[in-house]
Amino acid sequence: MTRIITLSTDFGTEDPYVGVMKGVILGINPGVRLVDLTHSVGAQQVLEGSFLLGTAFSYFTEGTIHLAVVDPGVGSSRRALAVEAGGYYFVAPDNGLLTHVLAEFGHMARGSGDRPILTDIGNGVRAFSLTNPDYWLHPVSSTFHGRDVFSPIAAHLSLGIGLEELGEEVSSLLVFPLERPGREGGTISGRVIHIDHFGNLVTDIRIGDFPDEPVDVLIAGRVIHGLSSFYADAGVSDDVPLLAIAGSTGYLDIAVRNGNAARFLRVTPGAPVQVVVSRGR
Amino acid sequence: MTRIITLSTDFGTEDPYVGVMKGVILGINPGVRLVDLTHSVGAQQVLEGSFLLGTAFSYFTEGTIHLAVVDPGVGSSRRALAVEAGGYYFVAPDNGLLTHVLAEFGHMARGSGDRPILTDIGNGVRAFSLTNPDYWLHPVSSTFHGRDVFSPIAAHLSLGIGLEELGEEVSSLLVFPLERPGREGGTISGRVIHIDHFGNLVTDIRIGDFPDEPVDVLIAGRVIHGLSSFYADAGVSDDVPLLAIAGSTGYLDIAVRNGNAARFLRVTPGAPVQVVVSRGR
Amino acid sequence: MTRIITLSTDFGTEDPYVGVMKGVILGINPGVRLVDLTHSVGAQQVLEGSFLLGTAFSYFTEGTIHLAVVDPGVGSSRRALAVEAGGYYFVAPDNGLLTHVLAEFGHMARGSGDRPILTDIGNGVRAFSLTNPDYWLHPVSSTFHGRDVFSPIAAHLSLGIGLEELGEEVSSLLVFPLERPGREGGTISGRVIHIDHFGNLVTDIRIGDFPDEPVDVLIAGRVIHGLSSFYADAGVSDDVPLLAIAGSTGYLDIAVRNGNAARFLRVTPGAPVQVVVSRGR
Repeated sequence: MTRIITLSTDFGTEDPYVGVMKGVILGINPGVRLVDLTHSVGAQQVLEGSFLLGTAFSYFTEGTIHLAVVDPGVGSSRRALAVEAGGYYFVAPDNGLLTHVLAEFGHMARGSGDRPILTDIGNGVRAFSLTNPDYWLHPVSSTFHGRDVFSPIAAHLSLGIGLEELGEEVSSLLVFPLERPGREGGTISGRVIHIDHFGNLVTDIRIGDFPDEPVDVLIAGRVIHGLSSFYADAGVSDDVPLLAIAGSTGYLDIAVRNGNAARFLRVTPGAPVQVVVSRGR
Repeated sequence: MTRIITLSTDFGTEDPYVGVMKGVILGINPGVRLVDLTHSVGAQQVLEGSFLLGTAFSYFTEGTIHLAVVDPGVGSSRRALAVEAGGYYFVAPDNGLLTHVLAEFGHMARGSGDRPILTDIGNGVRAFSLTNPDYWLHPVSSTFHGRDVFSPIAAHLSLGIGLEELGEEVSSLLVFPLERPGREGGTISGRVIHIDHFGNLVTDIRIGDFPDEPVDVLIAGRVIHGLSSFYADAGVSDDVPLLAIAGSTGYLDIAVRNGNAARFLRVTPGAPVQVVVSRGR
Repeated sequence: MTRIITLSTDFGTEDPYVGVMKGVILGINPGVRLVDLTHSVGAQQVLEGSFLLGTAFSYFTEGTIHLAVVDPGVGSSRRALAVEAGGYYFVAPDNGLLTHVLAEFGHMARGSGDRPILTDIGNGVRAFSLTNPDYWLHPVSSTFHGRDVFSPIAAHLSLGIGLEELGEEVSSLLVFPLERPGREGGTISGRVIHIDHFGNLVTDIRIGDFPDEPVDVLIAGRVIHGLSSFYADAGVSDDVPLLAIAGSTGYLDIAVRNGNAARFLRVTPGAPVQVVVSRGR
């Protein structure tokens, strides 16, 4: 069967870095399918890369290999990983880039703060530290493991090489603590975690986290009454077409109809959002 | 035979939206070829998307499926379409996005204004409203039909599913009225309809609309004498290397040699252009 | 065997130009693999395109066809080329775009200045002027040979058509003179030749050009003591995390840890760089 390798990086597309990775992969497995997820992760923004990969990986068929490189520690002693979870494979540096993927499989960091925490895995998730140089491209540079380590590893996985060939199994990985939206009484407090190409604000509040009751959404000093069913829904307010909506990945989104909510509200990732369940209104 | 699906959207490439669509498509037809036309249509700029698709679709082999998603009405009652014309397939929302494609097959809206008009089709063009949920991805979100409806439909078409399986045939579609350049005496009056990556101005005046006679081209208060044969043609003027030329899609283009005409002339789409046939000069 | 065609252009990805080229190629050879190297070469920046192609081409398997179009002279009398070197094929205008590729095979221009110089080739490099219209797309526009000449030629090469079918063999090509970094005593003087997506400065000084001795690197009025082993290496200076490092393509790079060196130092391509070998320190 034709295998798929997806690529997610902070490399941009101006330089031939991504093309070179594909050249290396196709040199090892000329038959693999390659799909770009994004190369626009902010430079060295590991957590953003983790979030984007987390929203996308499961739309691919089982057996897909997700290659992710946001790797400010390249060349240092940070580990390189190949992980199997839920029938998918992930090839990435061990720096928290798989945080959101691992959360989908029930593995969350215990603790708080801005830095990734060594976190036990298990329950069907298997991880290997890439220590066997037989599957790398030589000479290995100290600045571009995307080309020299991660790409050849992904290509070999797509040929059916077993994880255990690639290095030593490990029982814990670096995972960012994810602050989960808190609920106090009828109020859920979360944050904007991503601003997409349209300027839509993606929050960390799951639509499933609040019941099918009327809500008010508070953001940047404004109140949005109720959820819209679709972007063109004009019900909320005619003068300010600001709306809250169930986003495509299951989170609460905030949008401006035919406009750019981030620009309109002047908010950036991290901005607080509240959902107030307005019972009996 | 390997089928091709092209993708044209306003999704940008920063988010994994396009990659996710490809994941859905490859999950249904792992053997299809995927080609990006553009993901840089201005957000919600349906007419621009229509123009770009219109200039590109015919360079692909017959049987190609062109998937186009610029869809501000996603989730509302706007129809979703699969259309067959000239041996090509088009999958798109029914919002005018196929205007320029349909014009190539002789179907123009009667009327004027900024909004698409319900327009009869026929003469070898067949259109179906996508009402059969058997070929969608479930659950269907109200914000991302590119992933949940259009991509799986395109993938099923590439497997040879007949249009009639996908929903009900319809006899009219929404089409934008295209203001055609007017000719009065020896003067053709048109507009800039697109500014490309190089800053070249693409107009709506077809090269075939004026004879092989000497012309003056008027734009932004300047006069360009005659058409150049190629961009590096220095004949026009040495101090201002502004030139008019037959563009690659059959329209009159205005360019600056090794420069950016849009920036030089400070014009935006919609700017008026005139071609004056200067007989007997 | 499945052949690969890579694409490098200054076309950007906003317009469907690159997609149309792929449509033309797949119409001729539906089985070929297509890989984008970059479409972000600066408009008409032939030398930059040459540099980027030069750093990337050799990471693909032999037999790969590298299609490169940065072509301000399109439609003029400039020649179009197909070149075989080192088991690779190159299809490009004859304007210096293959300068860095040819340098890898020992062919450098003799002379100096900003313009490409007609330079003899040989020693296993074969070049043909594309004069046989049988392998072009007709009608041929005067503005888009990427679509009408270069793409169909690349596609036919991928089908195994011989170079000698495509036109007449030529013995000299246009090549930019490459100013090689000069060495005087213990000082190597070079330049910044590229700024990548991360703001890293790629210089034209080869790491192999100076011995494994302690060095100081001088740029923009600053001194960097010694080379770092990796980007996260904090040894250099704690207050200014500026570092010099062996870049992934064998050249000396200058970077800021988790930052943007080009913005920090306010340098642009062409800025002078010096490596001072500090013996016996």
